[in-house]
Amino acid sequence: MTVFETPDLTAASYSAALFGLIATSVLLLMGTAWVRGHWKLVVTLCACSTIIGALAAYEARAAWQSGAVPVVYHYVGWVVTMPIQVLALFFMANCVGKVSMGLFWRLVVVSVLMVFVRYLGEAGYMHPTLAFLIGLIFWLYILGELFFGKMDLAIRDSLNKPVIRGYFWLRLIVTVGWAIYPLGNFITSFGGYDDGGALAVAYNVADFLNRMAFGAAVLSAGMLAMQSADEKVQG
Amino acid sequence: MTVFETPDLTAASYSAALFGLIATSVLLLMGTAWVRGHWKLVVTLCACSTIIGALAAYEARAAWQSGAVPVVYHYVGWVVTMPIQVLALFFMANCVGKVSMGLFWRLVVVSVLMVFVRYLGEAGYMHPTLAFLIGLIFWLYILGELFFGKMDLAIRDSLNKPVIRGYFWLRLIVTVGWAIYPLGNFITSFGGYDDGGALAVAYNVADFLNRMAFGAAVLSAGMLAMQSADEKVQG
Amino acid sequence: MTVFETPDLTAASYSAALFGLIATSVLLLMGTAWVRGHWKLVVTLCACSTIIGALAAYEARAAWQSGAVPVVYHYVGWVVTMPIQVLALFFMANCVGKVSMGLFWRLVVVSVLMVFVRYLGEAGYMHPTLAFLIGLIFWLYILGELFFGKMDLAIRDSLNKPVIRGYFWLRLIVTVGWAIYPLGNFITSFGGYDDGGALAVAYNVADFLNRMAFGAAVLSAGMLAMQSADEKVQG
Amino acid sequence: MTVFETPDLTAASYSAALFGLIATSVLLLMGTAWVRGHWKLVVTLCACSTIIGALAAYEARAAWQSGAVPVVYHYVGWVVTMPIQVLALFFMANCVGKVSMGLFWRLVVVSVLMVFVRYLGEAGYMHPTLAFLIGLIFWLYILGELFFGKMDLAIRDSLNKPVIRGYFWLRLIVTVGWAIYPLGNFITSFGGYDDGGALAVAYNVADFLNRMAFGAAVLSAGMLAMQSADEKVQG
Amino acid sequence: MTVFETPDLTAASYSAALFGLIATSVLLLMGTAWVRGHWKLVVTLCACSTIIGALAAYEARAAWQSGAVPVVYHYVGWVVTMPIQVLALFFMANCVGKVSMGLFWRLVVVSVLMVFVRYLGEAGYMHPTLAFLIGLIFWLYILGELFFGKMDLAIRDSLNKPVIRGYFWLRLIVTVGWAIYPLGNFITSFGGYDDGGALAVAYNVADFLNRMAFGAAVLSAGMLAMQSADEKVQG
Repeated sequence: MTVFETPDLTAASYSAALFGLIATSVLLLMGTAWVRGHWKLVVTLCACSTIIGALAAYEARAAWQSGAVPVVYHYVGWVVTMPIQVLALFFMANCVGKVSMGLFWRLVVVSVLMVFVRYLGEAGYMHPTLAFLIGLIFWLYILGELFFGKMDLAIRDSLNKPVIRGYFWLRLIVTVGWAIYPLGNFITSFGGYDDGGALAVAYNVADFLNRMAFGAAVLSAGMLAMQSADEKVQG
Repeated sequence: MTVFETPDLTAASYSAALFGLIATSVLLLMGTAWVRGHWKLVVTLCACSTIIGALAAYEARAAWQSGAVPVVYHYVGWVVTMPIQVLALFFMANCVGKVSMGLFWRLVVVSVLMVFVRYLGEAGYMHPTLAFLIGLIFWLYILGELFFGKMDLAIRDSLNKPVIRGYFWLRLIVTVGWAIYPLGNFITSFGGYDDGGALAVAYNVADFLNRMAFGAAVLSAGMLAMQSADEKVQG
Repeated sequence: MTVFETPDLTAASYSAALFGLIATSVLLLMGTAWVRGHWKLVVTLCACSTIIGALAAYEARAAWQSGAVPVVYHYVGWVVTMPIQVLALFFMANCVGKVSMGLFWRLVVVSVLMVFVRYLGEAGYMHPTLAFLIGLIFWLYILGELFFGKMDLAIRDSLNKPVIRGYFWLRLIVTVGWAIYPLGNFITSFGGYDDGGALAVAYNVADFLNRMAFGAAVLSAGMLAMQSADEKVQG
Repeated sequence: MTVFETPDLTAASYSAALFGLIATSVLLLMGTAWVRGHWKLVVTLCACSTIIGALAAYEARAAWQSGAVPVVYHYVGWVVTMPIQVLALFFMANCVGKVSMGLFWRLVVVSVLMVFVRYLGEAGYMHPTLAFLIGLIFWLYILGELFFGKMDLAIRDSLNKPVIRGYFWLRLIVTVGWAIYPLGNFITSFGGYDDGGALAVAYNVADFLNRMAFGAAVLSAGMLAMQSADEKVQG
Repeated sequence: MTVFETPDLTAASYSAALFGLIATSVLLLMGTAWVRGHWKLVVTLCACSTIIGALAAYEARAAWQSGAVPVVYHYVGWVVTMPIQVLALFFMANCVGKVSMGLFWRLVVVSVLMVFVRYLGEAGYMHPTLAFLIGLIFWLYILGELFFGKMDLAIRDSLNKPVIRGYFWLRLIVTVGWAIYPLGNFITSFGGYDDGGALAVAYNVADFLNRMAFGAAVLSAGMLAMQSADEKVQG
């Protein structure tokens, strides 16, 4: 419980991420009442992702206190939350257009494998270079679907401005924010880098962008989309 | 708390199952607001099953850390969740047609006994072969009800496409996914197999299919059934 | 946390009761949304009873692990939940008819005293025979009210078939299921029986009937009563 | 966790109070849906008071186990819950009439100071006689407001029978039930009484009246007030 | 668990703050149902801030028990809750008028940096004087926005009396109540003050104003704004 002393910035970053993720979870769960129809599902998926993030941060912090290297806890969190977040984008596109079930299954499988392969590489069950490269390819595939696939088409065809803008930002988070995971994977696997906490801090800071800002962006897109739909009906 | 170190894949599988079950529970509990009438009951039953699954995974993980063989924890979870899941299918058939209360009681009793008998066999209170065979027969009885009984009839008569498709997948999960339990029972009871974690990993992976995918399939069937009903009213 | 090893059937029964009570609590709390008017109060009271049951089972299990005799924990649970369950029946009668506030207070006082007197007897603060007999009389008084009192009259006058049938089953549970408590009290107080776990297992199995089935019966009675009322309005 | 053994009546009273407070909290939180308008606020305030009571009872029980004298825990609970309960009465009067904001602030300040002064006296920071007398005067001031102040006027002018009757009982609880606190304060401060548990038991039994019955009375007053208002509209 | 003995006023202040924050959280979460539209978001943000405050108080109390100086825990709480509270004011202005997104981002960045810089100073990562001054400037910037910026304009233009009065009090809390943080920062950084608990007590007492009264003021402003809008519609 006595989680950190003054100069332990790593433990402090875990606590800050934990508190922020809990606050975002509460906000998103309450927020499901402020959006309509399938947006409720999208916001709930983001809430699931922040709840799991909070649980993973809690356990990682406890492990850090006892001297263990808790990066592996992140993998357990990622293998659940990354597919959830990709699916949130899928259902967001589904709110405004029509996307196929085949895409759904491809996204689930690819995002689970992406995290799993990285874990195998870092845990030493697989050749690190190979794991890194396969994980990278899976990530690029997801980016490809987001930028040039059916989801992008459905979003653009909706002509709903808040949704288009929200999708733009969420795609940016998945592109820029998620780049830290292959990077961390690369450093740990090849650089022979023994994490003294800096990587954990980086992952925790990334959580503010990749989980909290992601969820907040989805919620605000949903609320603005509803508002603009209401205005059209009234106008 | 310091639940696992890097190469302990068994503990990692417990954590992944735990996180996934919590996420599914949140999703299903929120999802009860997105379906109508008796579907709320069906989705809530699935949520109960994932909540109990999460609690069992949490305790099994703690037992694993302290060196115990936590397979027995699964039994405690199964004796509560398997009847719940079978009843979810019963009430799903009840949503679209009429099934008798006698079937209700038969399903409850048989699914409780199925798990209880397997436990007695594995714990040594009963002859393992006998317990295995009785457990198998009980499972086959449930499959028989699902494939050739009144529930199948009620579902097929509903002419509601999403419900028929959902029932098809759920029945498949109960047939293929639940096959791991007699299999694990067989290996432990006869092979003299002393579980070093592999069986626990298999059970945890199975949880993703048998509890999480099961719940998600029920929720999506309920949402699609509602949508198709709405379209009929409008059309 | 490492709650039980394979052959400890007593601990397993605590865990099974705990999980079942949690599942029933979730179901009943969600179920308050599926019934109408005062039925919400009745279902919530049953949910309170299963929540307290879960807490008592959790603490009793922990005490069992540390070698203590946890029967006394049940008393603390009973002194809260038994009045709640009796009141649930009172408000159920109040849903369909008119029962006096005097009966309300008599039922509260008698059911609290029934549990309290038994505790005094078992803990040695009072002569065991006297405590047993007084507890028995209090229980018989409650049964008398249920079978021949104003509640039975109100229920029968309602002419609402699901309520009458539900009341029949609930009264049966209070008659047959609750008989285990004076029985256990008798065995412990007179037989000089030093509980090696068997009594705790019996109490846990009884919980499935007395708390879980009780709550499920109340919920289904409320849902069916609502349905039959709707049909009358439409018919 | 192994909270008490058979003859420890003090620990058992803590557990019973804890369970009862949790049950009342669940009932009141659910009950906010069964009342209307500002009554929701009143019932929620009572729920806050029982939740805090449950937390204080939980911590006091743990302290009792480890041999500490946990009366001081009650003070921490009281300093939060007593103002909340007084405010619940204020807002109850506000539901049916008009009471001034000045009264609001006087009640908050006086009820916080009442508990704080008693604590200072009992903890030895202040002369016990002086603290006892000041605490007594503050309590009498609150009683004066309840019996002869604007709140009584507003309630009586409402001509709403269930509210008038509910207010009568709540005022009685604050008069008779709260008398135990200055009494306990008196005994501890002057009698040089070293609490061996009896005072804690008395406080726990008082909780059943002062927190649980208080909350239940508020909820039933709110539900009956709504019902009588509905009947007037229909009649 | 045995959190404090009688004369430990510091631990008692932590417990009182913890209990008060939990009660306020429950009240605000329930209260989101009593306000309309964007006010739900504002009240939820305040609830997030009290939930985080409760978590931080819980952990700080545990650290205090084990002898650590828990002021640093407050920083982790502040870095999450202060931006949330500033944003609550922003969205409150947004409820009644139109404020730019640029202001949103400036407020987020400045309030996060304000807390972060103070932490760096107190933890010795940065020159204390510099950190203190920068933190002070950031705070003054926020006050400037509140008093002379677009938010003040939007509020005043709304002509909605309860909102104007509520904003007046909230701004006062941010001005007077938040002054304790640079003050405490000043004392710790320069006075070479080794906190023996007095500062923690001051922060805990400040929590009653800065988090609980803040949340209650927002909720009451929202409820009164709704009421006055309803009266206009009816009048």
